[in-house]
Amino acid sequence: MNSDSFASAFGGMSRRMFLERLGGVGGSALLLAGMSALGFGIASASERPPTLGGGGGKKVVVLGAGLAGLTSAYELSRAGYEVTVLEARGFAGGRCQTARKGFKLQELGGEEQVCDFDDGLYLNHGPWRIPYHHRSTLHYTREFNVPLEVVVNDNDAAYVYFEKGSGPLAGKPVRKGQVAADIRGYSAEILAKQVKQGALDQQMTAEDREQFIAYLRREGYLTEDLAYKGTDGRGFAVNPGAGTDPGPGKESTPFAMTDVLHSNAWRTLSSVAGYEQQRTMFQPIGGMDQIPKAFEKRVGQMIKYSSLVKQIRQDGSGVSVTYTDGTGKTSTLQADYCICTIPLSVLRQMDVGVSQKFKDAIGAVSYSLVGKIGLQMKTRFWEENHHIYGGHIYTDDPNVGTISLPSTGWQGRKGVILGYYNFGSNAAKVSALDVSGRAALALATGQKVFPEYKDSFETAFAASWHRIEHNLGGWAQWDEQARAEAYPVLCEPDGRIYLAGEHLSYLTGWQAGAIESAWQQIAKLDQRVHAA
Amino acid sequence: MNSDSFASAFGGMSRRMFLERLGGVGGSALLLAGMSALGFGIASASERPPTLGGGGGKKVVVLGAGLAGLTSAYELSRAGYEVTVLEARGFAGGRCQTARKGFKLQELGGEEQVCDFDDGLYLNHGPWRIPYHHRSTLHYTREFNVPLEVVVNDNDAAYVYFEKGSGPLAGKPVRKGQVAADIRGYSAEILAKQVKQGALDQQMTAEDREQFIAYLRREGYLTEDLAYKGTDGRGFAVNPGAGTDPGPGKESTPFAMTDVLHSNAWRTLSSVAGYEQQRTMFQPIGGMDQIPKAFEKRVGQMIKYSSLVKQIRQDGSGVSVTYTDGTGKTSTLQADYCICTIPLSVLRQMDVGVSQKFKDAIGAVSYSLVGKIGLQMKTRFWEENHHIYGGHIYTDDPNVGTISLPSTGWQGRKGVILGYYNFGSNAAKVSALDVSGRAALALATGQKVFPEYKDSFETAFAASWHRIEHNLGGWAQWDEQARAEAYPVLCEPDGRIYLAGEHLSYLTGWQAGAIESAWQQIAKLDQRVHAA
Repeated sequence: MNSDSFASAFGGMSRRMFLERLGGVGGSALLLAGMSALGFGIASASERPPTLGGGGGKKVVVLGAGLAGLTSAYELSRAGYEVTVLEARGFAGGRCQTARKGFKLQELGGEEQVCDFDDGLYLNHGPWRIPYHHRSTLHYTREFNVPLEVVVNDNDAAYVYFEKGSGPLAGKPVRKGQVAADIRGYSAEILAKQVKQGALDQQMTAEDREQFIAYLRREGYLTEDLAYKGTDGRGFAVNPGAGTDPGPGKESTPFAMTDVLHSNAWRTLSSVAGYEQQRTMFQPIGGMDQIPKAFEKRVGQMIKYSSLVKQIRQDGSGVSVTYTDGTGKTSTLQADYCICTIPLSVLRQMDVGVSQKFKDAIGAVSYSLVGKIGLQMKTRFWEENHHIYGGHIYTDDPNVGTISLPSTGWQGRKGVILGYYNFGSNAAKVSALDVSGRAALALATGQKVFPEYKDSFETAFAASWHRIEHNLGGWAQWDEQARAEAYPVLCEPDGRIYLAGEHLSYLTGWQAGAIESAWQQIAKLDQRVHAA
Repeated sequence: MNSDSFASAFGGMSRRMFLERLGGVGGSALLLAGMSALGFGIASASERPPTLGGGGGKKVVVLGAGLAGLTSAYELSRAGYEVTVLEARGFAGGRCQTARKGFKLQELGGEEQVCDFDDGLYLNHGPWRIPYHHRSTLHYTREFNVPLEVVVNDNDAAYVYFEKGSGPLAGKPVRKGQVAADIRGYSAEILAKQVKQGALDQQMTAEDREQFIAYLRREGYLTEDLAYKGTDGRGFAVNPGAGTDPGPGKESTPFAMTDVLHSNAWRTLSSVAGYEQQRTMFQPIGGMDQIPKAFEKRVGQMIKYSSLVKQIRQDGSGVSVTYTDGTGKTSTLQADYCICTIPLSVLRQMDVGVSQKFKDAIGAVSYSLVGKIGLQMKTRFWEENHHIYGGHIYTDDPNVGTISLPSTGWQGRKGVILGYYNFGSNAAKVSALDVSGRAALALATGQKVFPEYKDSFETAFAASWHRIEHNLGGWAQWDEQARAEAYPVLCEPDGRIYLAGEHLSYLTGWQAGAIESAWQQIAKLDQRVHAA
């Protein structure tokens, strides 16, 4: 591996940095053997926290006890920094919240909700999924022994419910796997016949064409004469079973291609899942907040809860942060450095002693409008009657978007469905309703998919992140210009103030973005301490 | 719904039977509403056990305490039959076994194995997966509160390792999702360009062609000019992350189409998973034997363990079964009817009082040769170094077939890999080796995929079902002629003897086949009792 390809394979890390990291990890021989045997390297530079030089008692004030703040506090304190965390809320986690019985939420200008789900049921109204390649998040679930379970993020048995198409499949729940089998089957048939008829004779060798047709036959379940006539993979009309009746069962009949095309249901398909949606996905057993709770066990004593930052000042020798605590008392905290993880949507309204350029950059990003609602259902009708275990119901109702079925409590008595997951102007519109109005909207669409929906509904809990104090949005949404101009400014410290959070990553909206940003910023801070 | 389509939708059940069943179940209004709203019916006739008329103390002897025997004993005894089960082994479950510390297995003519996996680790060397549409199996996990977890049965991050192709991807572990993205992307490109150039102008309307191209663009991640140039769905060369470095990361480069074609790796792809392999799949937490253990709690007192059937006789008034118990004592048990779930591979060697036609039919089926090995690894290197969480490594080494990664104990310290899953003559060949020879063979292939394999290996447990007493094979393999001629004979009772088991179903090798066969046979027996 030459040094160019080395640098590109390891995210621009120098060879020295890379070897240092490996040295601290153990098993380097294996890792290197693996890499060369496999012909590709470790994709991410950020699998593990940075090795810090050591704080030697330097004081760091961390603003915000979300994932970025918790990560900073945990790693810096382990390295000998003296850390204090100021957190506006009475609990850690930031947007990583789990609503269960007794959880309270009051949106700005809204009613106070007290979650009244049955014991054991919950909604992750913030982050809810961990893709297998978010190695940073998985680093901490492993280190802290947070037990995980699989999120079923793709389920061919789940329905697509699209109303806006036309033809016999529009406005009807259709199983995604049936749409996939049919349109891919017909596509394979058309393409295989084209190849057979010589369409690619100029482009491909005879041997390749033969292999290609063999692939298409397999992919599309084609007959020997290259026709798609359905497949057991789309399900049976009568399932096979015992004896002679049902015996072999009865195959299902494919949809007509034109009906699939007009239904729009194919919009849910792609060759492989997009990067952020890929299997295997996980969730902590019992709720996503198990992750901040695990951090809290380790750094909880450093956190000053219910502490609202009022002013941030810095000079050549340190940072001072003025805040009010839960009793309303105002205090000022002195530190050598500050890691500020406050969302930019909130930070831009605060009194922060940074340069004008930095302030302008803070103001240059918008935050997503996003809403979720959890609907407690008194039966798991989707499992019992429809035989759908987890996964998502895709709708083309933009107020609802995705209805998601729980990947926990399989075969239990009740369950909490994610009743909508909406964005942008739709999220704004829905969030203008009170919670019962939001539930009614969710139920109206769900009822079109599942006839049991309204009868089964018991109680709802809703969150609209753009209306939630201390967040004012779901996640940072960088446009191209802001990414090019403002983002690099904010990735570097302003004096002694370092920003960190999902907003300073290309994994916006994911916990991994927050964690990896924290890793990067504390490494910079630590290098500076040691260079000094 | 007219009565023809009714019969076909409900597996030939009469409308009367159907309504009777629904009546016993509750929620019929909902179910019917659902069916009509959704435009399709319940696919399987066998979601729930039959409603039995009641045994009134009639005696039934059940031979075998596998899933078919346990189901028969549970349902018949609840309905008032007096049931005795004779089981050759010291435990219930039949082929549904879980090997964990202390589990003993001696293959015919082989060494005695005592499983020495670490506490908490196990191998399901019999059935190991429950597809979501095996409603009969899921009926009992729900009724008995057997907690389930997801089996990751498809994982795009898992490797395909095919040696027998040619070109640069042969003999190299390649991530399945990369192969899928590339060949589907190129196919979509070729097809979209064909459509654009008018290849389908005679077959499709202009509107359909436009939709079709829109589908192909989406499916294959094509650029605006219909080219496939890769996708983030195939993974990054450098993962996106924090700050400006790695920042957006670095996209990966697609394989050349000819390389994919020559690699043979496309043989692992199909438009949707085949019927038996579909998501969502489950396993009981802690091992598949949690299912027979749950049955045992309810019918254990009816089971005479370590009881070997020597002779089965019947006449116009009853059945007598002679057996030896664990002490070597021979006894004869009288009953009104017999449910015999002994595998045909074993039954055909026994002294059974049935007609010649029935005997001939029992002899007409062959049983699969099948082997599995569990390899305890001291680290979960596939998760830690390769970022593969569950799923299967497909190989073209027929002695190994599939290597399967555990879908339990995520991020734990150790794990048990299924080191091979082989069939037919390959299973025969491998089973001729002793256990350490089998492990060596499994390790040699696994080592080509994972450089950590041999170093991590600690201990093995292997099972070759064709060499296991009381089973003599994995499952019934009906050829076309036997299915047409012998199978229907065996589905009907011979006098007072009813056969049941996976072999009397079209779900051979699955627990659902055993359960649904039992349901069908006990329903017949019960009808006869009530007709008498």
